[in-house]
Amino acid sequence: MPDVQAKIFPIDALREFSIRVFLKFGVPKEDATQAAEVLASADLRGIDSHGVARLHSYFGLLNEGMINPKPRISTVRSTLSTATVDGDNGLGLVVGPQANRMAMDMAEKAGSGWVSVCNTNHFGIAGYYVLQALERDLIGWAMTNSAKLVAPLFGAERMLGTNPIAIAFPGKDEPAIVIDMATCAAAYGKIEMARRRGEPIPSGWAIDSQARVTTNPDDAVNGGALSPLGSDRERGGHKGYALAMMVDMLCAVLSGANWGPFAPPFALRQEISTRSVGKGIGHFFGAMRIDGFMEVDSFKRQVDDYIRVFRGTKPAPGTNGPLIPGDPEREAEKLRREKGVPLIPPILEDLRDISRQTGIPFD
Amino acid sequence: MPDVQAKIFPIDALREFSIRVFLKFGVPKEDATQAAEVLASADLRGIDSHGVARLHSYFGLLNEGMINPKPRISTVRSTLSTATVDGDNGLGLVVGPQANRMAMDMAEKAGSGWVSVCNTNHFGIAGYYVLQALERDLIGWAMTNSAKLVAPLFGAERMLGTNPIAIAFPGKDEPAIVIDMATCAAAYGKIEMARRRGEPIPSGWAIDSQARVTTNPDDAVNGGALSPLGSDRERGGHKGYALAMMVDMLCAVLSGANWGPFAPPFALRQEISTRSVGKGIGHFFGAMRIDGFMEVDSFKRQVDDYIRVFRGTKPAPGTNGPLIPGDPEREAEKLRREKGVPLIPPILEDLRDISRQTGIPFD
Repeated sequence: MPDVQAKIFPIDALREFSIRVFLKFGVPKEDATQAAEVLASADLRGIDSHGVARLHSYFGLLNEGMINPKPRISTVRSTLSTATVDGDNGLGLVVGPQANRMAMDMAEKAGSGWVSVCNTNHFGIAGYYVLQALERDLIGWAMTNSAKLVAPLFGAERMLGTNPIAIAFPGKDEPAIVIDMATCAAAYGKIEMARRRGEPIPSGWAIDSQARVTTNPDDAVNGGALSPLGSDRERGGHKGYALAMMVDMLCAVLSGANWGPFAPPFALRQEISTRSVGKGIGHFFGAMRIDGFMEVDSFKRQVDDYIRVFRGTKPAPGTNGPLIPGDPEREAEKLRREKGVPLIPPILEDLRDISRQTGIPFD
Repeated sequence: MPDVQAKIFPIDALREFSIRVFLKFGVPKEDATQAAEVLASADLRGIDSHGVARLHSYFGLLNEGMINPKPRISTVRSTLSTATVDGDNGLGLVVGPQANRMAMDMAEKAGSGWVSVCNTNHFGIAGYYVLQALERDLIGWAMTNSAKLVAPLFGAERMLGTNPIAIAFPGKDEPAIVIDMATCAAAYGKIEMARRRGEPIPSGWAIDSQARVTTNPDDAVNGGALSPLGSDRERGGHKGYALAMMVDMLCAVLSGANWGPFAPPFALRQEISTRSVGKGIGHFFGAMRIDGFMEVDSFKRQVDDYIRVFRGTKPAPGTNGPLIPGDPEREAEKLRREKGVPLIPPILEDLRDISRQTGIPFD
C-alpha cells in the first residue's frame, strides 16, 4: 500500500545521486556507476530495503574508512570452471558484479563458472546478478552471507544471516522466471515495519530472547532472532536452517570469508562480532550455459510452456492463482520506470543527511 | 519410537534380497548391486520410505515392462563442465549413480561438473549421491523431480513433486555436513503415518481439495495437496514453491524430462499424467572440487570449526540445541549397521509378496 508521506523520485535522479556519493569517496567513475546501477535495480524492482535506503550505510562505512573505495580485486585460485576471488574489502556493489562477470566468462568457455568471493561487503540484491546472466543466455546463480539475524532451529541466539539464494531461467515470449529469496521466514524489514506501526507480527517469523515464538516485533528486535524458512520443527524449520548454512558454506567457508555469527555487520550501529575467522563477508556466483545442456531455443520454449501451465493452475479461493517467481518485481519495475520510485520519510532523512555532509544536492 | 510389530533385518540380508530381485528382471549384476546399494543407504540412514519399502514399486514397474532393466545410458550433449544424459528409461538407482560419476569425473578435470538427466526413474535418496562426492573430496549436489504432490502457493491442486535438494561439505575430524531435504513442508509419508494412527496433522503441512489449510490427513490424501516449505504466504510459502520450481527446472526442463504436473508416477497405482512434455523424470547432479576454491585441508578445518561453533549455540529451552544437518541420519546409520533395520508389517507384507511372485526367499 502506498505511503501517503512518500515522495516520488525518477530513478535517474536516485542513480545520479548515488554515483556522486560514491565518487566523493574516491570510487572510480566506472565503479561508482556500477554500484549505483545495482542499487537502482533494487529500487526499480520494489526491494526498497536494498536500494538507496542502504546508501547511508555504505556512506557511513566509506566515511569511516571501513570500505576500500579502490580495491584491487584478485583471483586467489582457479580451475577452468571455478575461482576464488579476494575483493580487497571493496564495495560489494563493485566486487560482486566483477566476480559475477568472471563466472559468466568462465561459463562461456567451460560450460559453467563458479566463483566464491571473500573480503567483500554487501552486494545489493542477489536478483541483480542473475538478471545479468540472462542477458548472456546463461542460467545465473547468486548467493551471499550476511551479519547474523537468524537463529538455527533449536537455537536461542542469532547465528546466521538472512543468506539469500537467487537463480533465473529465461523464457522466449514469456518473461524469465527469477527466484530471489532469503532463507528466513520473513524479512527483518517487515518486522521493523510492524514495529513502527505498532502491529503484531505473524507467529513463525521470530523468536524472543528466550527462544519462545513471539508475535511482538519488539521481542524480535530486542535480543530475539528471525526464524529460518519453515519457522519451527513441525513445519520444516530445519530445512530453512540447512539452506542458510549451505549459503554460508558456499559464500564464506569456501572463499575464506567470515561465516556464521562472525560475518561483520553492514551498518556502523550494528554489533561488531567478537571473532574473525576470515576476511569480510562472502558471495557465491554461478553461471551455466543453457546450450551446455540443451538447444537454447528449445529450452526457452519449454520455459514458456511451463509458465503458462503454472499460470493455469486452479486458483486457491480468494487468490488469482499462483504467481511466477519474479512477477511482483517485474511489475514494480514497469511501474517505477514510468512513475518513479517512492521514498518514505526515514529514507529521505537519511539521504538528506548524506547531502548535508557531502554537499551533494539531493532534493 | 520403535514399532513393536517391526521385525529387524541385517542390512546385508536386505541388500541381498534387493540384488536378487533386480537380477530376476535381467538387470546386469553390477547394476543390480549398485541399485541395491542405493536402497540400503536409505534403510541405513533411517529414510525408511526410500529403502526396501520402495522395492515393491520398482518390482511392479519392472514386472510391467515400464522400466528398462538394461538401459543404454547416453550423453546427449556436453561441454567441459556440463552434460545432458539420457537414462534410456533405466532404473534411477542405476542411471543416477552413473550420471553422478560423470559429474564427479568432469569436476576432477574442469573444476566442476554438472549433469542434467532425462528419461530416468526414481533415484532413491538424494543424500546417497552427495555422500559419494565426499569420498572424492568434492562438494556434491543432487536433486530430482518427482510426481505431483505439492500445490504452488495460491494454487488449489498438485503441480510439483517433493523435489529434494542435497549438498554435502566434508569436515576433517568432525563428520560431514550433509543436507538432504524435500522442498515441501513435511513428507507425504508423515501424513500417511498420521492417517494410519487416526491422528491430526499440524497446520501448514497440507491443504484440502478446496485449498483450505487442513489438519485432517484424509483431506490431504483425498484430493488435497502438500504445502511447500514455508506453508503459507505469511510464513514464506512462496519460497518453498520457488525452490521446488528451481529443482524442476534444473532436473527436467534443462534435460528434456517431464516437468511439473506431467512427471510420471512412481508406483503403478498412482494417477498417470494426462500429457507428456519430455522423457521420464529428471535428475540434476553437481560436483565441485574443493581445491578449485581453497586448499582442501584448510577448508575441512574451517568446517570442523563451523560445526563446533554451531553445536555451541545457546540452546532453545527444552532442546539440546541445534543439530548439524546429517546428524540424525548418521546416528541412525551407526545404530542400524550394528543392530539391523526394523521393517514394519506393511513393508514386510510387500516384500513377502515379491518373494511369493519371484520365488526369491525373504524371511
